[in-house]
Amino acid sequence: MAQTSIILRVELNHGLVSFGDVAATISRAGGDITSIDVIRPGKESSVRDITVDVADTKESTIVDSLKAQAGIKIINVSDRTFLVHLGGKVEVTPKLPIKNRDDLSRVYTPGVARVCTAIAENPDKAYSLTIKRNTVAVISDGTAVLGLGDIGPHAAAPVMEGKAMLFKQLADVDAFPICLDTKDTEEIIRTIKAISPIFGGINLEDISSPRCFEIERRLAEELDMPVFHDDQHGTAVVVIAGLLNALKVTGKRIGNIRVVVNGIGAAGVSICKMLLNAGVTRLVPVDREGAIVRGGQYEYPMWQWLADQPQVEDRPGTLKELIADADVFIGVSRGNLLNGDDVKRMAADPIVFAMANPVPEIAPEEALPHTAVFATGRSDYPNQINNVLVFPGIFRGVLDCRARVINEPMKLAAARAIAAVISENELNEQYIIPSIFNEKVVQNVRKAVIETAILTGVSRRVPPDFR
Amino acid sequence: MAQTSIILRVELNHGLVSFGDVAATISRAGGDITSIDVIRPGKESSVRDITVDVADTKESTIVDSLKAQAGIKIINVSDRTFLVHLGGKVEVTPKLPIKNRDDLSRVYTPGVARVCTAIAENPDKAYSLTIKRNTVAVISDGTAVLGLGDIGPHAAAPVMEGKAMLFKQLADVDAFPICLDTKDTEEIIRTIKAISPIFGGINLEDISSPRCFEIERRLAEELDMPVFHDDQHGTAVVVIAGLLNALKVTGKRIGNIRVVVNGIGAAGVSICKMLLNAGVTRLVPVDREGAIVRGGQYEYPMWQWLADQPQVEDRPGTLKELIADADVFIGVSRGNLLNGDDVKRMAADPIVFAMANPVPEIAPEEALPHTAVFATGRSDYPNQINNVLVFPGIFRGVLDCRARVINEPMKLAAARAIAAVISENELNEQYIIPSIFNEKVVQNVRKAVIETAILTGVSRRVPPDFR
Repeated sequence: MAQTSIILRVELNHGLVSFGDVAATISRAGGDITSIDVIRPGKESSVRDITVDVADTKESTIVDSLKAQAGIKIINVSDRTFLVHLGGKVEVTPKLPIKNRDDLSRVYTPGVARVCTAIAENPDKAYSLTIKRNTVAVISDGTAVLGLGDIGPHAAAPVMEGKAMLFKQLADVDAFPICLDTKDTEEIIRTIKAISPIFGGINLEDISSPRCFEIERRLAEELDMPVFHDDQHGTAVVVIAGLLNALKVTGKRIGNIRVVVNGIGAAGVSICKMLLNAGVTRLVPVDREGAIVRGGQYEYPMWQWLADQPQVEDRPGTLKELIADADVFIGVSRGNLLNGDDVKRMAADPIVFAMANPVPEIAPEEALPHTAVFATGRSDYPNQINNVLVFPGIFRGVLDCRARVINEPMKLAAARAIAAVISENELNEQYIIPSIFNEKVVQNVRKAVIETAILTGVSRRVPPDFR
Repeated sequence: MAQTSIILRVELNHGLVSFGDVAATISRAGGDITSIDVIRPGKESSVRDITVDVADTKESTIVDSLKAQAGIKIINVSDRTFLVHLGGKVEVTPKLPIKNRDDLSRVYTPGVARVCTAIAENPDKAYSLTIKRNTVAVISDGTAVLGLGDIGPHAAAPVMEGKAMLFKQLADVDAFPICLDTKDTEEIIRTIKAISPIFGGINLEDISSPRCFEIERRLAEELDMPVFHDDQHGTAVVVIAGLLNALKVTGKRIGNIRVVVNGIGAAGVSICKMLLNAGVTRLVPVDREGAIVRGGQYEYPMWQWLADQPQVEDRPGTLKELIADADVFIGVSRGNLLNGDDVKRMAADPIVFAMANPVPEIAPEEALPHTAVFATGRSDYPNQINNVLVFPGIFRGVLDCRARVINEPMKLAAARAIAAVISENELNEQYIIPSIFNEKVVQNVRKAVIETAILTGVSRRVPPDFR
């Protein structure tokens, strides 16, 4: 299903094969040639780079077909995705050049000594005289990376680097990827605290549940800067944003809806919390063993917290049972748990957010005919619930107002700000969530975050445009 | 002595004062106006930015003189050095733009998953598919920053950022500053190991002695990447480079000279080791309590190690006593320990490297008449011994050949490579050390480091230009 571009470097023996033969072979094997570069021309043989668009699954078919043909030698197969990763995706660059000894004496010794002294006398000056005011650490221990699970810190790096790119491009935040070679909760907390002085905020990423809760809570308490576990809150904020617009489309009100949330891990817990803060009065959290019910006893502190909330239903049951009469289904769990019949048993005009990755909780083809609003985490359907909409604007905001924390009101304000990017006129069941390339998103989120930080007393600076 | 540029933002009441008065006042107070920008013109009053070159010590005189004059209101005084530090000196930038959804799907989800999987299957691929292959951590705990001592991690940041700029500009190495909020040896080791996966090398910086020895030794043993404490080895490498050329200028041979090294801390120990590896047979290490003598018993393991070396002299004494008949004095200690008479008592054609910062062990005016070669750490005299000559090329080399360690032969090769930048024709007593802006320096050091890494079996990759 997913398309990729590969670049084949081939040597052709002109006595045995023509380029036409090669093109025909590639085409028969399912590839679509998009460009050809002659790397080494020649009478008897030549070397060319052939760029081919192909389905992920057919890549090896093309290579095998070419190998089977006499006169073709495959020198190399490069894949565009791998090519853009060569040497990594971010770099650390000086903001100004050091052209001569004079420049050097200002940015380094001896001039820098006066700047160091000024900060030593007043450590708050680190916010004006170092990169602290604009720099975020994107930190993972590699235990819950995408849908891949515990793949370790080295393998997690490409995701953290990608995130650092997005931070800079979308919100001009300098983000540096840090991958931790430890899975120990206390060690992770200690390490992040130890490296914190150069950073103005901490974005935790892809840390498995339930350790992620303790790590985030402790860091938020013990560090005097915003700490944000994106897998929890980034997802929750964008889900709430989408839900607010889906409710507008369907004419439902948040105080009246019955919401089933399936998958009570990192994201699910944060979604439940935000739903309650947003005014949901009938909440049904469900995990593998069925509903988490009001009054129940649970091992995980987060589940127990849910069981203590008055808005949580006390009726036990399985997902299939409990989805009946639900207005909203929010899945952050596993693929293929539901079918069209299940959706038919929901309340009128059901809203379904099936965000399991890469396979949603219900196949879009099954859900679409029966839902009023349908959203997934995938980019090949409308309404992609993507947390890239959240973290750039949130951190732009907290850095600009030097917020101490990212509290629940700030997250809710961010969700409302994302929802508000789409005007009443534009809003429809296929368009409840703006594109991540919509420039209004970061601006709106930043503004909402700063306003709410100031209102809730957690900001330490009023940005010039708020004075 | 040091010059700085300040920018004065002043409001002039035209009824009381003219710009000519202001200029005259600045000039009388010792300032040199280099530019004037009118920020807000006006009939009755105007606001201007006046850039003034001034000696560090006279800055407040100018400000006070202006304040004393009627009709002048000082709105702000900014200093150029502080201005270039606003918001910090480095940024983290994407290597390629994310222009559309297609780009996004390659550098981030879903495409990035295949890259993560490839690294999970073979962690060595982190060197090709992440920033690891070109990225160095510049790490300090802020305990021994410049001549300022223990100023803490926040205040150390400007130095680490300056270093990161130099890494990129001089050697295209991506370096990120990390400032540690702990001084505990074990905690520092643990923290650096925990954050190591994203880095290809560790540059330790401004960590006080003797903790720096243990921290570096343990990290070099326990991490599979090069670890380099610049205060020790950067200084030692450039000192040896300068010494090799000073010996050429004076016609002395390394096997015959008697060398006094004063200040046996981080840099002094590494200098002594390198001198021995370079072939010095008569070494006199001296600290505050006098000579460290062969056969003596010492508390610090590094001093004891020196006392066990056959080339170390066994004669006790003070610096003043032991400098008599020395061919070479190398000071990495404190200012004003020696005078001209002491230098006169050295052997013929003495070589003096007085590198205490900012005040050398002997005043240049006192040393110059009596020395064959004189060098300091300062840029306002010839022969500046500056470790900016060392770390960019060393790390360029070790990253390119993926060296496991930086061993003594590699450091010695780097010293020889720096010395060799100056040809026999160019070499003279005023020019034993190349400029840090000489592009040959990084190239030569890189080449020597790679050659020696390959020869000593610590490289894991042969760069294309070495095949």
